[in-house]
Amino acid sequence: MNMIPIKILSDNDVKVILDIRNTVACVENAYLLKANNQARLFPLISEDLSEGKADMDIKSGILNGEDTFGLKLVAWFGENEKQGLPPLTGLTMIFDLKTGLPKAIINARYLTAMRTGAAGAIGIKYLSKTDSEVLLVAGTGFQAVFQIAAAISVKPSLKKVYIYNPLRYQSAMKLQCSIKEELGKITNDIGDLGNCMWLQRIDSVDFIAVDNAAKALEETDTVITITPSRKAYISNEWVMPGTHFSCIGADMPGKQEIDEKIFEVARVFVDDIHQASSVGETQTPIKSDIIDEKHITEIGYLINGTIKGRTSDKDITIFDSTGIALQDLTVSNFLIKKAEELNIGTAVYI
Amino acid sequence: MNMIPIKILSDNDVKVILDIRNTVACVENAYLLKANNQARLFPLISEDLSEGKADMDIKSGILNGEDTFGLKLVAWFGENEKQGLPPLTGLTMIFDLKTGLPKAIINARYLTAMRTGAAGAIGIKYLSKTDSEVLLVAGTGFQAVFQIAAAISVKPSLKKVYIYNPLRYQSAMKLQCSIKEELGKITNDIGDLGNCMWLQRIDSVDFIAVDNAAKALEETDTVITITPSRKAYISNEWVMPGTHFSCIGADMPGKQEIDEKIFEVARVFVDDIHQASSVGETQTPIKSDIIDEKHITEIGYLINGTIKGRTSDKDITIFDSTGIALQDLTVSNFLIKKAEELNIGTAVYI
Repeated sequence: MNMIPIKILSDNDVKVILDIRNTVACVENAYLLKANNQARLFPLISEDLSEGKADMDIKSGILNGEDTFGLKLVAWFGENEKQGLPPLTGLTMIFDLKTGLPKAIINARYLTAMRTGAAGAIGIKYLSKTDSEVLLVAGTGFQAVFQIAAAISVKPSLKKVYIYNPLRYQSAMKLQCSIKEELGKITNDIGDLGNCMWLQRIDSVDFIAVDNAAKALEETDTVITITPSRKAYISNEWVMPGTHFSCIGADMPGKQEIDEKIFEVARVFVDDIHQASSVGETQTPIKSDIIDEKHITEIGYLINGTIKGRTSDKDITIFDSTGIALQDLTVSNFLIKKAEELNIGTAVYI
Repeated sequence: MNMIPIKILSDNDVKVILDIRNTVACVENAYLLKANNQARLFPLISEDLSEGKADMDIKSGILNGEDTFGLKLVAWFGENEKQGLPPLTGLTMIFDLKTGLPKAIINARYLTAMRTGAAGAIGIKYLSKTDSEVLLVAGTGFQAVFQIAAAISVKPSLKKVYIYNPLRYQSAMKLQCSIKEELGKITNDIGDLGNCMWLQRIDSVDFIAVDNAAKALEETDTVITITPSRKAYISNEWVMPGTHFSCIGADMPGKQEIDEKIFEVARVFVDDIHQASSVGETQTPIKSDIIDEKHITEIGYLINGTIKGRTSDKDITIFDSTGIALQDLTVSNFLIKKAEELNIGTAVYI
């Protein structure tokens, strides 16, 4: 029986290879391949493992444009932190579309954090005002750091980041204290030796915890939402003309972060129409008949130039990202290629 | 960042551990846990990768009874054989239900062959006549060998095996020539040193290629169907009272092997009602309104004693198995445990 060589990449291996810039490039390419019919998602599997305490989802798809198919299983175990274990765990499996043979198994933890940060940032890159200076990040968990990192990487005009937690101001304060150190642990550009330019960039931004979202929004032109909220905590009345939202937290039925009325006047982009309207921020305005699917465009069509994004400095724009398998597949392919070049990871016969 | 230890089991590792007897025990346990509400299937994903040339499915589920959840991706690439590659490839991923951490990655090729053989045999063990002597196996591909192996292992009364290929008699002749050698490569019982008793058992059976199914069925009391057929090749009129069918080949919409009228009078058992009636042999009689879901029982209820199987030597019985994730999970758990004991496989940090 012939043994098949596969590559195993640990979270540490992934961390050595991935920087914000190459991750953003991979995720943009995933959106582009989808819009150009060179990629397709398979149905999302999302299941409770222990009610309110643990769940998992399986995201899978095919990337004809990169001769790949595969999946990612990610599980959330809410009580892991008490035992010193990571609450998010998971693996990515990558297969060759020419032969069906497995190519690699990759720890999905850091990969997911980076590709999700990249998604939020791509929304900002393509939709927020050119000279956007003030970002409000709602949410102070593990993923918030990656959202901030990718946002300030793709948007050099950003000077100030408001950190907001709709439930606990204290958490926002805590993140304000640690954010520079946390951001410094992420690599922006592997070519930037010692991460020097990145550390300078981080230092050029003010990070300020806020406890009044309405007031902060008066000054904000770019918003990222990244909480597990089940009801809107940003009211339509607080939103200034010209604001862009990257909505990242809602990824399950019942989740919502921003007032569905904001969708009424906004230009709305998503990663995948079906997934966004069933489990994303878009689910509520769709259910409430505020918008229908005709009002929504997949962001790949903005990237490939088919559709225009922002048309004026007054437009309110939304990018709703629920996270799609194609992001995981393009990033995984990049990791496999780089791991080969740099001789990183463990080769195993299976 | 903490690294997580996982075990990689190659196809050769699996082959060292799995024998027919322990595989049958694991698969029976999977059915039992399902009937006892200690296990649950997640939705089946089944997708074309290249029309008519390649497809894949993802089977996933949770085994509360064994603190496990996970999935198996299996792909079929019809043109692989021309390049000397296996047409079936795939991997199983096993996770710990207490922490969500990954435990093992297992090559799914031999595992799938063995657990699918075990399924057909469990149908025979619980439903065919006690003294069944003649088995007809329709289908002469890779999986037919595993079906025959498991059948003659669980049913010591079997003395004669008719080998039938509905399209090419030559293929049946070819399998008749090689079947004893092929069966000899499978381990029936690891405790049987040198596989001696198993080789004797194989030698006690006559294997005969046939080109007339109607005639062979006059003498047959147990049937296994394991072809990729899309229309019935066994007619209702040919079936003798008392015959048992283990229907294994149909596992996709549009597949069918036996006349749907046989279901009208048969006692029908399946591995999973939803899956069998949507992609299994049961799909056609359901669609034709010959039976409804009330006529179908999951075999776990037969194994746990809730429902009676065969009630007389005249009953026609059917076990329709489409293959469920829980089989893969129980077999994988057994493999992980044994690999630990025997120090088999590769330990990797991920």
